Amino acid sequence: MLDELKKEVYKANMLLKESGLVILTWGNASAIDRETGLIVIKPSGVEYDELSPNNLVVINMNGDVVEGDLKPSSDTKTHIELYKHFNSIGGIVHTHSHYATSWAQAGKEIPPFGTTHADTFYGNIPCTRPMSYEEIEGSYEKETGRVIVELFRNNNIDENNMGAVLVKSHGPFTWGQSVAEAVENAIILEETAKMAFNTELLNHNQEPIESVLLNKHFFRKHGKDAYYGQY
Amino acid sequence: MLDELKKEVYKANMLLKESGLVILTWGNASAIDRETGLIVIKPSGVEYDELSPNNLVVINMNGDVVEGDLKPSSDTKTHIELYKHFNSIGGIVHTHSHYATSWAQAGKEIPPFGTTHADTFYGNIPCTRPMSYEEIEGSYEKETGRVIVELFRNNNIDENNMGAVLVKSHGPFTWGQSVAEAVENAIILEETAKMAFNTELLNHNQEPIESVLLNKHFFRKHGKDAYYGQY
Amino acid sequence: MLDELKKEVYKANMLLKESGLVILTWGNASAIDRETGLIVIKPSGVEYDELSPNNLVVINMNGDVVEGDLKPSSDTKTHIELYKHFNSIGGIVHTHSHYATSWAQAGKEIPPFGTTHADTFYGNIPCTRPMSYEEIEGSYEKETGRVIVELFRNNNIDENNMGAVLVKSHGPFTWGQSVAEAVENAIILEETAKMAFNTELLNHNQEPIESVLLNKHFFRKHGKDAYYGQY
Amino acid sequence: MLDELKKEVYKANMLLKESGLVILTWGNASAIDRETGLIVIKPSGVEYDELSPNNLVVINMNGDVVEGDLKPSSDTKTHIELYKHFNSIGGIVHTHSHYATSWAQAGKEIPPFGTTHADTFYGNIPCTRPMSYEEIEGSYEKETGRVIVELFRNNNIDENNMGAVLVKSHGPFTWGQSVAEAVENAIILEETAKMAFNTELLNHNQEPIESVLLNKHFFRKHGKDAYYGQY
Repeated sequence: MLDELKKEVYKANMLLKESGLVILTWGNASAIDRETGLIVIKPSGVEYDELSPNNLVVINMNGDVVEGDLKPSSDTKTHIELYKHFNSIGGIVHTHSHYATSWAQAGKEIPPFGTTHADTFYGNIPCTRPMSYEEIEGSYEKETGRVIVELFRNNNIDENNMGAVLVKSHGPFTWGQSVAEAVENAIILEETAKMAFNTELLNHNQEPIESVLLNKHFFRKHGKDAYYGQY
Repeated sequence: MLDELKKEVYKANMLLKESGLVILTWGNASAIDRETGLIVIKPSGVEYDELSPNNLVVINMNGDVVEGDLKPSSDTKTHIELYKHFNSIGGIVHTHSHYATSWAQAGKEIPPFGTTHADTFYGNIPCTRPMSYEEIEGSYEKETGRVIVELFRNNNIDENNMGAVLVKSHGPFTWGQSVAEAVENAIILEETAKMAFNTELLNHNQEPIESVLLNKHFFRKHGKDAYYGQY
Repeated sequence: MLDELKKEVYKANMLLKESGLVILTWGNASAIDRETGLIVIKPSGVEYDELSPNNLVVINMNGDVVEGDLKPSSDTKTHIELYKHFNSIGGIVHTHSHYATSWAQAGKEIPPFGTTHADTFYGNIPCTRPMSYEEIEGSYEKETGRVIVELFRNNNIDENNMGAVLVKSHGPFTWGQSVAEAVENAIILEETAKMAFNTELLNHNQEPIESVLLNKHFFRKHGKDAYYGQY
Repeated sequence: MLDELKKEVYKANMLLKESGLVILTWGNASAIDRETGLIVIKPSGVEYDELSPNNLVVINMNGDVVEGDLKPSSDTKTHIELYKHFNSIGGIVHTHSHYATSWAQAGKEIPPFGTTHADTFYGNIPCTRPMSYEEIEGSYEKETGRVIVELFRNNNIDENNMGAVLVKSHGPFTWGQSVAEAVENAIILEETAKMAFNTELLNHNQEPIESVLLNKHFFRKHGKDAYYGQY
């Protein structure tokens, strides 16, 4: 079942490793089939060289395993929460990539310091509030997803224009219309985070770019007036 | 048409990727045939592993596609503007390389802190002024080229002695007599930017090198008295 | 003798090199057979491409060579001291990996700034006190081990929850139930040290994470209530 | 002539490239045959993939080409000056490696912050004074060598205990009893420079290690009481 989607999710997970975003088993990618509501996700703690389309796990929106012999990623409930509330996304990625995680550990959102950022992310890459004692001790992974959704809803951030978030003290989640786009956003986030780090060190209190430049670059690549690429 | 030039431009684009200056599709290289005024440039948003000499785009100085089925790079008009005003250059490269882009994001020119810099770049690597609302909302890519030319003309910078510029909040452009030299300048710029970053962190308010040392190293490699290399 | 253990120790040493934690011959891994009290350790100063399971050295707890033609690692006595006092560990690794060594050189323990740290290390990664003149001039490598043990005992740090230490002005040692786990801890320590470095630079005086989050992540992966991975 | 030495020098030059210390053609290694006073050195500006033992240049102590069709490295006179005054060295390496060059650009000597440094370099890695107008405009490369020798002689630094120097605003030279040792010192210098950079950023005004620890580590690997390695 979902053979094509499994191939996509497998390829996405492997690309995370090859792109240097993930060491050991620290990352996971999933995709959802919106028609059936079924999610294909990486199994928990499995080495990348043992991964194959066949040992990915299929779960439903309640987290029940529908297919597969292995336990799904320990972050599964965070993925489900995002799929539930971000209706138009098709894939999610979680990593502990170096620079994005460093910003998350510092508890700081990443300002748009340049057009590299603006080409993909429309504004500050937001960072969640600290989670409460009850949230951590409760259904932690589900609450992680809720805190992300809360951040986007309370601040009127459109998940279609901002495919990334930093979970405070933890690390980044990214998403997109497909799992391939979620991986691409993870790669761009890491590059953006690295250059923003360097920019901060060169110029403390660096101002973000002007909104006219942010708009120009974001909408050069996104939406009906986009003119980057071949289509 | 322009088969040799296409091979050079193809090779240059691939070398950008192999040198780690470019991730995803974030870079482009072009070359001009000065006799016909035709420019060979990378198509927009095409993956490097799908690139070949045959799918490069040939355009004229008005930006009209003369040969090729794909759209040219979204930065094409910046390339044209530079070819128009910098009469002796033969190739141009644009990247979002890490350290050069970080300096551009900080809006700072890169001072010559050492002989590595002086071997290739004769003085500060300049950074453009912020673009105006009208420039960004107008013919943005063309205006980007105009702002670069304005910077060089207003400050009497000779583009033959300074094959690189930082576009504020954006990233670097480099050029040379050939597209191969433009790529080499992009590689050297990134290395120079990285070492200048480290130098700044080790020693805030580091002074640039003395002009006698700048002259010595630049003219050891350039001009009629050069004695580096085999010729 | 100890053929299986030799294969494990060989594989561990090679993985240190492949993971980029070790340049030249700067690292060593060992494992102990608790039944016989025999230790398999890398020979001193041997190039990694000349290493094989057959030229590893077998020593007893007194440091006497029981098998092998080569001298054991110059750090052998530190390993022995740790095996003697940390009764449940099965393998030890020493490297001069970049970021962990930089923290050791700065004489600072590494605070848990995020969940990447908390997933593996339960609290600050401790740093030893400076060694005295007598300790350095005496049985230096043995005293190095004693200073580590002293640090853990005086501060009630449980070596089963903290598989890493920074030796001041020197570099890290890591350990685990097996030599494979010791290598994994060395890899995680380096990554943790790098991200903590970045976090410090982004936010001087960054607070460590709350203990509820530290507990959550550490015990998600360790102990009887662990639910990460397949078992 | 000097076939064995040419192989060593070729191998050393290639290892510089493979170790990531050199980009483009920015580095050179040489060795001297003390019996004949002949020096084998890299030709100037030749790409590494065109290098072979057969196109290396043989020169005498006056800088005359004794064998070879190519011009010797532009830094040849610096090498000669060092061979003349540092009587016991057999090989020299020059690079523009990232971190060592950054320290040279900042005009700062590298303090021994840890045992990694002390294992190879006995004290601060010194940095030359600025060169005068006359020295730069005169026989620049020869004067570069003279300034290095002056630094060592005026400060009673023993070149046998300190196989590296930073030339201010330029970059490092390293040497050793053989050209292989000179390369090893270049690798260790770069690693040391990187870790010292990180240490400075973690702890401004970090103190160097105590002399008892410096002595312990340096003489553990050097001199008659050395006990590191197999001999």
